[in-house]
Amino acid sequence: MVDTAVSTAPSASRTSAAGADARIDVPAVTDLLLGTWKEIRLEAREMIADSAFWRIDGLSHHAHRERVLDQTRLLAQHGAGGRAYPVEYGGMATNGGNLAGFEELVLADPSLQIKSGVQWGLFGSAVYQLGTKSHHDRWLRDIMDLRILGAFAMTETGHGSDVAAIGTTATYDPETEEFVIHTPFRGAWKDYLGNAAVHATAATVFAQLISRGVNYGVHCFFVPIRDANGVFLPGVGGQDDGVKGGLNGVDNGRLHFDRVRVPRENLLNRYGDVAADGTYSSPIASPGRRFFTMLGALVQGRVSLDGAATWASGLALKIAITYGNQRRQFDNGAGETVLLDYAKHRRRLLPLLATTYAQAFAHDELLVKFDGVFGGTADTDDNRQDLETLAAALKPLSTWHALATIQESREACGGAGYLAENRLVTLHQDLDVYVTFEGDNNVLLQLVGKRLLGDYAAQFKGKDARALAAFAVGETADKIFHGAGLRQLGQAFADLGSTARSVEHGLRADDQQQLLTERVQRMVADVATRLRPSAKMSPADAAALFDENQVELLEAARAHGELLQWEAFTDALGRVDDAGTRQVLTWLRDLFGLGLIEKHLAWHLLNGRLSTQRAAAVSRYIDRLCARLRPHAQDLVDAFGFAPEHVRAPLASGAEQDRQDEAAAYVAALAASGDAPVRERKPAR
Amino acid sequence: MVDTAVSTAPSASRTSAAGADARIDVPAVTDLLLGTWKEIRLEAREMIADSAFWRIDGLSHHAHRERVLDQTRLLAQHGAGGRAYPVEYGGMATNGGNLAGFEELVLADPSLQIKSGVQWGLFGSAVYQLGTKSHHDRWLRDIMDLRILGAFAMTETGHGSDVAAIGTTATYDPETEEFVIHTPFRGAWKDYLGNAAVHATAATVFAQLISRGVNYGVHCFFVPIRDANGVFLPGVGGQDDGVKGGLNGVDNGRLHFDRVRVPRENLLNRYGDVAADGTYSSPIASPGRRFFTMLGALVQGRVSLDGAATWASGLALKIAITYGNQRRQFDNGAGETVLLDYAKHRRRLLPLLATTYAQAFAHDELLVKFDGVFGGTADTDDNRQDLETLAAALKPLSTWHALATIQESREACGGAGYLAENRLVTLHQDLDVYVTFEGDNNVLLQLVGKRLLGDYAAQFKGKDARALAAFAVGETADKIFHGAGLRQLGQAFADLGSTARSVEHGLRADDQQQLLTERVQRMVADVATRLRPSAKMSPADAAALFDENQVELLEAARAHGELLQWEAFTDALGRVDDAGTRQVLTWLRDLFGLGLIEKHLAWHLLNGRLSTQRAAAVSRYIDRLCARLRPHAQDLVDAFGFAPEHVRAPLASGAEQDRQDEAAAYVAALAASGDAPVRERKPAR
Repeated sequence: MVDTAVSTAPSASRTSAAGADARIDVPAVTDLLLGTWKEIRLEAREMIADSAFWRIDGLSHHAHRERVLDQTRLLAQHGAGGRAYPVEYGGMATNGGNLAGFEELVLADPSLQIKSGVQWGLFGSAVYQLGTKSHHDRWLRDIMDLRILGAFAMTETGHGSDVAAIGTTATYDPETEEFVIHTPFRGAWKDYLGNAAVHATAATVFAQLISRGVNYGVHCFFVPIRDANGVFLPGVGGQDDGVKGGLNGVDNGRLHFDRVRVPRENLLNRYGDVAADGTYSSPIASPGRRFFTMLGALVQGRVSLDGAATWASGLALKIAITYGNQRRQFDNGAGETVLLDYAKHRRRLLPLLATTYAQAFAHDELLVKFDGVFGGTADTDDNRQDLETLAAALKPLSTWHALATIQESREACGGAGYLAENRLVTLHQDLDVYVTFEGDNNVLLQLVGKRLLGDYAAQFKGKDARALAAFAVGETADKIFHGAGLRQLGQAFADLGSTARSVEHGLRADDQQQLLTERVQRMVADVATRLRPSAKMSPADAAALFDENQVELLEAARAHGELLQWEAFTDALGRVDDAGTRQVLTWLRDLFGLGLIEKHLAWHLLNGRLSTQRAAAVSRYIDRLCARLRPHAQDLVDAFGFAPEHVRAPLASGAEQDRQDEAAAYVAALAASGDAPVRERKPAR
Repeated sequence: MVDTAVSTAPSASRTSAAGADARIDVPAVTDLLLGTWKEIRLEAREMIADSAFWRIDGLSHHAHRERVLDQTRLLAQHGAGGRAYPVEYGGMATNGGNLAGFEELVLADPSLQIKSGVQWGLFGSAVYQLGTKSHHDRWLRDIMDLRILGAFAMTETGHGSDVAAIGTTATYDPETEEFVIHTPFRGAWKDYLGNAAVHATAATVFAQLISRGVNYGVHCFFVPIRDANGVFLPGVGGQDDGVKGGLNGVDNGRLHFDRVRVPRENLLNRYGDVAADGTYSSPIASPGRRFFTMLGALVQGRVSLDGAATWASGLALKIAITYGNQRRQFDNGAGETVLLDYAKHRRRLLPLLATTYAQAFAHDELLVKFDGVFGGTADTDDNRQDLETLAAALKPLSTWHALATIQESREACGGAGYLAENRLVTLHQDLDVYVTFEGDNNVLLQLVGKRLLGDYAAQFKGKDARALAAFAVGETADKIFHGAGLRQLGQAFADLGSTARSVEHGLRADDQQQLLTERVQRMVADVATRLRPSAKMSPADAAALFDENQVELLEAARAHGELLQWEAFTDALGRVDDAGTRQVLTWLRDLFGLGLIEKHLAWHLLNGRLSTQRAAAVSRYIDRLCARLRPHAQDLVDAFGFAPEHVRAPLASGAEQDRQDEAAAYVAALAASGDAPVRERKPAR
């Protein structure tokens, strides 16, 4: 379609030249991206510049596991294991900083990030967050320095995301004051547990706590599983999960328990305890709220995956865009064209770069929120719930984005991208599982969707249906159920970028915000309205009605997360002083925002939010933004701040440029020599 | 949004029950999917039911290479190497059947499919298709039975898709009547060549043919590279490409040549020859047409990838849908829900199944066309060009679809899907490179786009601009440039399914066809109109103008391919006699067609092809089709006809159902015993 709204715009090539007027201040943008815990990130990056931490391709999974174990010991020597734990145990008591440091490990080897995350972030955190002082005293130091390696035994073969329904039982025996840990059937075996196949000597086992004939729901127990020689203790058994799609430096496996007895004191009893006589007590009376509180204490896994996925995306783009800036293919009459000078190549990579930036900014806000809750400065029930919702909204988006970005980067590098040495394929393999672990992405989005519905419904307590209907079509709904986001109701944006002369009429920052916000609002209100009859239905009919709306609810949750990312990017613009940097980053933010609008263009049209004329301008404007950003693409990936020791892809080392130069010199010398063959003449017709 | 057009429809669960009235005849659908060379496919499947052909996870790439070499020898013993070659050399002279047999190997191990494809489909085909009788006499038998293993040395480190620009030279020396094969710089090294790292003793090397100071363009030469001990011959060198993202059973590597001399007769001279005195001659006068004819002779790689990618998609869906029919997760009040009873789960998998069916039918038509051209029954210039365009349109769609389908299947199986034993992850790793080899997908789509533009422009030879403009908005354009497809102009469809009572008004088969067709027509006409000024521009300006339209042209090419798939599916419906089968497959075809329309819904709205009301109905109708198809999902994947020896994923073996049954029996027995713990009471408020 010819887009009259932008048809007088300069062509892509001329725009590129114009765009070169502005320049970004690369170190300043690096600071911005590194965020609140910049220093810890830089320390981590310096540490992993040591080749001892790097992934080696082609190792057997057995050798890879041992290498990563050694690397984890190295990490412990660097003090990386204790950053989250209290100072009295030798830790640093920094929650946000701890995760920031771990996230960087993805650049060395994602297996190292995950294995150390299992040890200190899941197993160790279960002891720390779900246990009490006696547990900390007994185990935290040993966990920090790897005298105890542990598995986090929550997931079962038969139950993954639905933790409340696990089959493993912990039945209290008042005679001996012990819990009897038992796996009653094959589906209740613990499965996919890092450290479980070989290295773990203990596990934090989640099981249904039963005392005096009552099931008090899922609790966590510290259970020794192997002796010092690595042999299973009596009653404990297991299996190796074997080769996986990636992360083969982590020894995932299965565990099962045949009436294994542990002392009563091995119940991690912060949120629920059993007295010697079997009496159960808990500071949280509601079983449901108790369960979610315990799970919520372990939210950090999701938070850190959001960050690691973002850096992995940045690394993939650093590789692909560096190569795309050097590689030439096909002669268009004026010499061979650099890949990034093709419109399609820009369209493939630059929108992904914009999203990666948005994620980096949103992630830092998530990390700040996490630090506030877990560091105690903002530890309220509301904040905990907001944090969980925020993590559940962002982790799915960033982990899926990582896979899409790494894959597109791999394809953009052609056959060279398929070689392991260039890292893109192994990065994809390792991050693949991020989209289903620590909460399956779709399950997490459903949590977000239900929270949005709950917030929406909370506005109508005591109001009648007419008020609800009026509200649903009103303009204020988003102000109310947008509370679970990054900012408070009514907070002004530091900068909407609306003064930038480059922004098209009707697609400015405030238009973008309005379109993105109204979409969340409308979808949630629509689903809520359609679900209202379910209150008077049978459970089966209510479930069927919910099912009919599930797809749209998940889409609303995704739209909510996208809006939060957009807002975080926009907020970050307000922290930029340099005019050129601000200009370029504003284009990048616009590319992100318009990319979201383009993705859902039909929705905006069908819901009357965009006129046909404005809608028709979106795609063309995105093409122009890609052309404007093209001269800055290298700066923008350089701003991730990766050193050659972090990139390590021969493809992006400058070797391609060297080969181009050598070939060009050869051709030039041959031409100068007069010995160059001439082209065959075209035959006369 | 509430969709009034479908709001009176039965709910998803009731639709499922109603849909169960119809049943597909599974064996009949298997026949339909296996297509024209069913018998050869079944023979191949029987052969690879032998575990000797199966992939083993966790092998080092060295061990995997040797295993696949042994398997290739087994294939040769089964006569699989010679099916395409003439009977006089011991072959079977079946072109379509040969590819059909190879495609099935993807079920055993994609490395085996590719290694045998390199040997017989690329290296062997270069000798057969580009050589003449003396070459066939000398080498074909040895190639068939693996006395000669060969590399297909076309791609260079510096030039992949742009074969015409390769740097390797073959300079004729009339003194000795030899060609001197030479790699003048690092970028001209041959790269990513299967068999080159270890096993090849010869290579078909593509090089610029230079004689008497004239470069006659790219030709192919038979070049011995290793002795019987596997040692490089003098002047030949190479490198191992090492570990790759997948296909590690194939030994890819690099080759370079330092003035290596081969006899004049080693030029594969079907399309160009050099006499003893250095005089060049060719049956094709135009250098451009000669080049494309030579490359076109090797189109079979693309054709077979289209088929292999389709079966791989089918295998992934067989695994994920079987599991989705057994796995339960979350209790909705009426027991734990089977995954496929979630709307989102259906939405994730069933549209991918519909596309896989469409691809299978389109692929068989492609294979028939290929067989006609290469078997000689339809070997015209026009048919060759149509075949190349068709392969270039279908291979990108099916290989991208395979990656999307395998990935979604993997995620739909959660953590279990990440284990190598369940095959989805390795299938993704192996098929990853299909999207960039044998022609990068985007480059292929651009070829299709240019063909569409050419066909469009051909209508206006001698007509003035006004006629063109009138034509561009007319209704007949598609009839003219849709010739490069699967069918001839004006051919009636055997069945449009328009009588099926289930099809919504406005979204019936004829509506689908019209929407899909008009989109191709409109996009091509728009791009063509915008490119018209380029004829009067400088090459650089013309290139810039083309670049501005590249993204849309590629999209038009993709839309063209999607239309061809839709048409093939619709044609296949006409070959179904059984009413129930026809009903279910019509729903599946509708799901495919409406999925395409939904994907491009904004386009149809912006271009006035769909009213807001009809557009709003599309998504809801897709949800309903998914619900209707849900009871048939297992039948539809069973119809791929895979035996347990082809599936081999424990996940889809019924083990999950066994675990569910065991757990349910345990719970029931416990309840019957009266010893079951009671749930904790909710606290009083």
